[in-house]
Amino acid sequence: MTIATSSATSSVKTEMPLSAEELRKIHAYWRAANYLAVGMIYLKDNPLLKEPLKPEHVKKRLLGHWGSSPGLSFLYIHLNRLINKYDLNALYVAGPGHGAPGILGPAYLEGTYSEVYPDKGQDEEGLQKFFKQFSFPGHIGSHVTPETPGSIHEGGELGYSLSHAYGAAYDNPDLLVAAVVGDGEAETGPLATAWHSNKYLNPIRDGAVLPILHLNGYKIANPTLLSRIPHEELETLFQGYGYRPYFVEGSDPEIMHQKMAQTLETCVQEIRRIQEEARRTGVAKRPRWPMIVFRSPKGWTGPDAVKGHKVEGFWRAHQVPMSDVHQNPESLTILEDWMHSYKPEELFDETGKLIPELQELSPKGARRMSANPITNGGLVRKDLRRPDFRDYAVEVPRPGHVEAQNTRIMSFYLRDVMRDNMHNFRVFGPDETASNRLQALYEVTKKAWMAEILPEDEDGGFLSPDGRVMEMLSEHTLEGWLEGYLLTGRHGLFHTYEAFAHVIDSMFNQHAKWLDICKNEVPWRAPVSSLNILLSSVVWRQDHNGFSHQDPGFIDLVTNKSAEVTRIYLPPDANCLLSVMDHCLKSKNYVNVIVADKQDHLQYLTMDEAIAHCTKGIGIWEWASNDDCGQEPDEPDVVMASCGDILTREALAATAILREEFPDLKVRFINVVDLFRLQSEVDHPHGLSDRDFDSLFTPDKPVMFNFHGYPWLIHKLTYRRSNQERIHVRGYKEKGNINTPLELAIRNQVDRFNLVIDVIDRVPKLGSAAAYVKERMKNQIIEHMHYAREHGTDKPEITSWTWPY
Amino acid sequence: MTIATSSATSSVKTEMPLSAEELRKIHAYWRAANYLAVGMIYLKDNPLLKEPLKPEHVKKRLLGHWGSSPGLSFLYIHLNRLINKYDLNALYVAGPGHGAPGILGPAYLEGTYSEVYPDKGQDEEGLQKFFKQFSFPGHIGSHVTPETPGSIHEGGELGYSLSHAYGAAYDNPDLLVAAVVGDGEAETGPLATAWHSNKYLNPIRDGAVLPILHLNGYKIANPTLLSRIPHEELETLFQGYGYRPYFVEGSDPEIMHQKMAQTLETCVQEIRRIQEEARRTGVAKRPRWPMIVFRSPKGWTGPDAVKGHKVEGFWRAHQVPMSDVHQNPESLTILEDWMHSYKPEELFDETGKLIPELQELSPKGARRMSANPITNGGLVRKDLRRPDFRDYAVEVPRPGHVEAQNTRIMSFYLRDVMRDNMHNFRVFGPDETASNRLQALYEVTKKAWMAEILPEDEDGGFLSPDGRVMEMLSEHTLEGWLEGYLLTGRHGLFHTYEAFAHVIDSMFNQHAKWLDICKNEVPWRAPVSSLNILLSSVVWRQDHNGFSHQDPGFIDLVTNKSAEVTRIYLPPDANCLLSVMDHCLKSKNYVNVIVADKQDHLQYLTMDEAIAHCTKGIGIWEWASNDDCGQEPDEPDVVMASCGDILTREALAATAILREEFPDLKVRFINVVDLFRLQSEVDHPHGLSDRDFDSLFTPDKPVMFNFHGYPWLIHKLTYRRSNQERIHVRGYKEKGNINTPLELAIRNQVDRFNLVIDVIDRVPKLGSAAAYVKERMKNQIIEHMHYAREHGTDKPEITSWTWPY
Repeated sequence: MTIATSSATSSVKTEMPLSAEELRKIHAYWRAANYLAVGMIYLKDNPLLKEPLKPEHVKKRLLGHWGSSPGLSFLYIHLNRLINKYDLNALYVAGPGHGAPGILGPAYLEGTYSEVYPDKGQDEEGLQKFFKQFSFPGHIGSHVTPETPGSIHEGGELGYSLSHAYGAAYDNPDLLVAAVVGDGEAETGPLATAWHSNKYLNPIRDGAVLPILHLNGYKIANPTLLSRIPHEELETLFQGYGYRPYFVEGSDPEIMHQKMAQTLETCVQEIRRIQEEARRTGVAKRPRWPMIVFRSPKGWTGPDAVKGHKVEGFWRAHQVPMSDVHQNPESLTILEDWMHSYKPEELFDETGKLIPELQELSPKGARRMSANPITNGGLVRKDLRRPDFRDYAVEVPRPGHVEAQNTRIMSFYLRDVMRDNMHNFRVFGPDETASNRLQALYEVTKKAWMAEILPEDEDGGFLSPDGRVMEMLSEHTLEGWLEGYLLTGRHGLFHTYEAFAHVIDSMFNQHAKWLDICKNEVPWRAPVSSLNILLSSVVWRQDHNGFSHQDPGFIDLVTNKSAEVTRIYLPPDANCLLSVMDHCLKSKNYVNVIVADKQDHLQYLTMDEAIAHCTKGIGIWEWASNDDCGQEPDEPDVVMASCGDILTREALAATAILREEFPDLKVRFINVVDLFRLQSEVDHPHGLSDRDFDSLFTPDKPVMFNFHGYPWLIHKLTYRRSNQERIHVRGYKEKGNINTPLELAIRNQVDRFNLVIDVIDRVPKLGSAAAYVKERMKNQIIEHMHYAREHGTDKPEITSWTWPY
Repeated sequence: MTIATSSATSSVKTEMPLSAEELRKIHAYWRAANYLAVGMIYLKDNPLLKEPLKPEHVKKRLLGHWGSSPGLSFLYIHLNRLINKYDLNALYVAGPGHGAPGILGPAYLEGTYSEVYPDKGQDEEGLQKFFKQFSFPGHIGSHVTPETPGSIHEGGELGYSLSHAYGAAYDNPDLLVAAVVGDGEAETGPLATAWHSNKYLNPIRDGAVLPILHLNGYKIANPTLLSRIPHEELETLFQGYGYRPYFVEGSDPEIMHQKMAQTLETCVQEIRRIQEEARRTGVAKRPRWPMIVFRSPKGWTGPDAVKGHKVEGFWRAHQVPMSDVHQNPESLTILEDWMHSYKPEELFDETGKLIPELQELSPKGARRMSANPITNGGLVRKDLRRPDFRDYAVEVPRPGHVEAQNTRIMSFYLRDVMRDNMHNFRVFGPDETASNRLQALYEVTKKAWMAEILPEDEDGGFLSPDGRVMEMLSEHTLEGWLEGYLLTGRHGLFHTYEAFAHVIDSMFNQHAKWLDICKNEVPWRAPVSSLNILLSSVVWRQDHNGFSHQDPGFIDLVTNKSAEVTRIYLPPDANCLLSVMDHCLKSKNYVNVIVADKQDHLQYLTMDEAIAHCTKGIGIWEWASNDDCGQEPDEPDVVMASCGDILTREALAATAILREEFPDLKVRFINVVDLFRLQSEVDHPHGLSDRDFDSLFTPDKPVMFNFHGYPWLIHKLTYRRSNQERIHVRGYKEKGNINTPLELAIRNQVDRFNLVIDVIDRVPKLGSAAAYVKERMKNQIIEHMHYAREHGTDKPEITSWTWPY
């Protein structure tokens, strides 16, 4: 006998795969999960409803989201069935916002929750605590936060579930990631393009992602777009995305259990068939992966209507269906009836434990999705094999004489990291790997590409199903993939044009918050590899791309997040970049942001010097200073500080001019690699003590600080320092269009000539020559601007300038 | 006779719509456009190739992007044909990055460019300047920047072309927006979801958008995803998005001209038919709008190959095909041959003017897409009709006693603004209009919705094809729509949860840059309405949603952009919010960010006081101060400053405690509405002079500043102020999870008790009571934290606190 399905085209012909007994048990398990979801939202006491429900059993402040919970647990339980049947290695990504009750319930039922949080044991007392802690001050939230065992995706901000899921699946050939996408979330841009991730998933070396669009029809107060387009349109949409969509639609639980059991099994078999064929033949071609459209009522099994307003199957089911249970006995009764409708007495024994016949439905040990060690990525993480970065050093016979492309030099190291870690390291960037000068990677791997490959791609296309360089013109997808990859225990690097890192501002924020909570509040989470972000093609070399490409503000954002998880490095040359990159790749639980340009830059430090300098993170460059000349040591007249590759060059050039023009002026030159060194040790673990800061910058001498980013950031970091008003900062101040590099520098006053003028204006003792030199600097500026506008380039004397000492 | 097309399913049967003569002319016009594109990239002299090409005719630094230019101008010219034929009111949105040569060429050929920039006249000298200025220091960029007549979309960052196009079409029933989407751009999230904009476009009251996916196959160094999936998959994708896709594919110009002419005409006729039927019947149902997939070779008509590497139809055509023309005579010859292949001598007369028979192909006057006044939105903008905001005032008999929901009060004013401007005002928000308490809008309009409407929507769904509230769970799409709407001369407001404003960080950056350039470098652009952003559901009331929802950092980002276009307001109560909102809605050329919460808040100022306070932007609240008591006027012991609704309440509560505990302590209370008042007048036009700043804050007394956002932002803004180290700022410092409001405040030390402790620690003269009071405050903190964790709420004495004086 078959059950008629609502859609002829793609639904599986349902063959009643569940026996009556199986059906009864699965449904009972789901009832238990739903009971828990309602309990979490409402109850602080009387968890088993052993006595009649009274207002004092109900939490004062009712928080949480019922709407998507029943659907989420429905899927969870059906996945459990197949995990048991096929011994699947699976994890669950819950996209819908605030869907935690639908996930926490199953995690509790299968015992993981009590193992991780022994005070929430599988007994009445534990259940009471489990209920009360939900959305309760000092306890857990209504998202699938880091505190939730089995979660790698909080969903606190929507749109990233699918890219996280694919990131988890890459290089995990045995893994099945069930990615439940909320239909609200599906409207976001990041999610809308993440469907295309299937063009990067290789059925031989990667695991599988089974996307399940949970079409429960409503967001907070609106229908969802995808639930309000014709069935055929929805079906073609997912066919167009390259999937084979299966539809499970309805509201009768009995029929829906059968449909879902059958459809999920079909999908799992199809996935296994795809993988087996690809692995047997060794031919990795892009299959039409299955996906499921699961249309079920919002707030399924909850109250039909409250006070004459439709609730089940409508947006009113989104959060708490009745919020007046304290004041309104009728509402209290609805709640009590609703909870009793799940018949808890049949599900839990007298002590509050799930009855044995239902316990049997839970997968065991690490097969439980809430206990899959991959979801606590630090547990399965293996250290990256790193070659000795010193072997890639640029030779620097004298500081400031040799030029090299900083990211290109580093890329040889990166290439060999890739070579040595061909199973757990990937590099992610939006179509800019070569542009950012990392093309050495192509000597050992290619770009992952499962779409069509043409003969002409042979000539420099570097495409392959086995590629480990991930390029797609979607910063959101790349960042999402990398986060999913890291949270499941692997390593990686994201690189992008500096200005367009802002595209993922909010993703960075959310990931930093995730790490912060893991570090401080979830001791059972093992540390994962840091999120390493390389910003290249920086503001100062976007002179030719213009104003829209000039924005060094991503690091400003980073400084707002917890000091425990944020690190920012601006290595001035290639050897420093090598040292910094090696440090970042081995670190854990940070977001490391490295700002380094790709074009030719002067090299300053030998590898040994670079290591010493980067280890300190800030230091005096003796070779560029003339303050330590025997008389009055440590008393410079002015401190010239720089941070950033291009800015360091201009600061050095200014220093050279000062030394020539004012031989008696004592200039101390400081370079900053580790930006947080500037902050107080009170605010950041890398912060210098005031004593150390003053011994570098002196307590009171004028400091001329040439900074890569927005100048105010330095004031923000140094506001606690002594006499901070003597720190004069130059940086990018939104002055730019189509320029030459020097012209762009001049417009923002970070060029050598303006720096000299700045020093003259701030150091009183320069004598009669000062006015004359200042005038000459101004003329230089005019002359260079004029040349740039005439010739379209900077004068050779600028482009070929080297440190003259 | 018909021409065979590559795709049977969706291509138009080509009927050779162009006569031989028309074909010849259109092709000639395109040759002229392509010639100009190459000229812009390469030449600084010899623009008509009257003499043999020499290295000195070529720019030193070769910049620009050839790849997508021929396709862009091809489309432009075919649109021109239909503009002439049907007298269309059309504009062109060029999505592909760096595609400017393909747009600048046609703008020059139809005369607009020379009208706007008379020094680039339609003669040899003008042409030479036109070529040289492109991507040349001090001149124009390679995007369709604000300097480009006819542009409302720079495309400096990719992904927003389609949402901008729809924004332009809303409420412009006669307008046809040709939205050319690059196939690289199509991979971004914002673009991938913007296709769904068709579910919001009403064929009766709105114009039409004709999306044209320009499938030229490659990004910088990669194939594009959509060009490497099977034809059928691509077709179903767009059918799934709800469009009727037409394919124009090929490389033979003659055939492609016929195909494009026929297909475009079919699309225009279909659009007109849809509109006519809807407007005749008055029934606005969602049609299947046409769209075009235009597959043409990248770098079409350029060199086939260079040095044995394929160029035309490959990613190597992306930028400058040969970059060594100065050094390599062979390359110079290729360039010369390439340019000659367009036969410029047949296209331009001796003086450099386009020959008359081609000039005839250009639309005339305002029908030229480059001269459509809508693209210079300030020209067609009409002031918003604003009711008197004072009529919506909350009565405030005594400061700090009445409570009201600030955004809700403002929403009545907003409702009436809507009522009075039902053709040029819309409100945009991601499914949060009611959540942010703006539901009064539904008294006069509904939510725009062209997808399916069900009977149950009648009960609080507020859906209608005529709605003017725009809700979609995509901040990107909403922001893109609003930008397109504003740039074409209309008005609007975007509101969102504060934390998730970061989703559009980068869009804000780009729009602020656009406005900055318009204001400072493009005098012919008339001012447009400001981009108004209301951030509600703020950090301090996300205690229950948890850490992921707590982020007040959007305004940090805003302070990095040009002071000429950025404004930030934090009104402390409803009357101030009304005053600020009215001010913002009438302003032009700014980005106004308003931070105001939606929940119950104390009201402080009568409407007259609010107007006075908001006009100053900062001020002493005499009623909350006790420093001006006759003896030693203007010499408070401490200045208590606040900025933000919730923070003001805590600062006042602290002040009340201080007055009770230390009756002799003179406290001056200052509230800040206009954040940039804090900055120096040197840095921002709203900045206070140092003299004014000191007269408010005194030059040297301790200032306790309770700030809505990240505390360091205040240090960043005040770093130039005298003795800034005495300014002690409290704000959000990334301490939060599930909390009560007071608990969240305590964790970040912005609560009344911690503020009192802060004052005690900083004012030495408080005497022996100080230690005792401090201890009591600490106990209070412990007690309140304990209560919150026990009861899940704050004590009633906190939630019902009012100003006691």
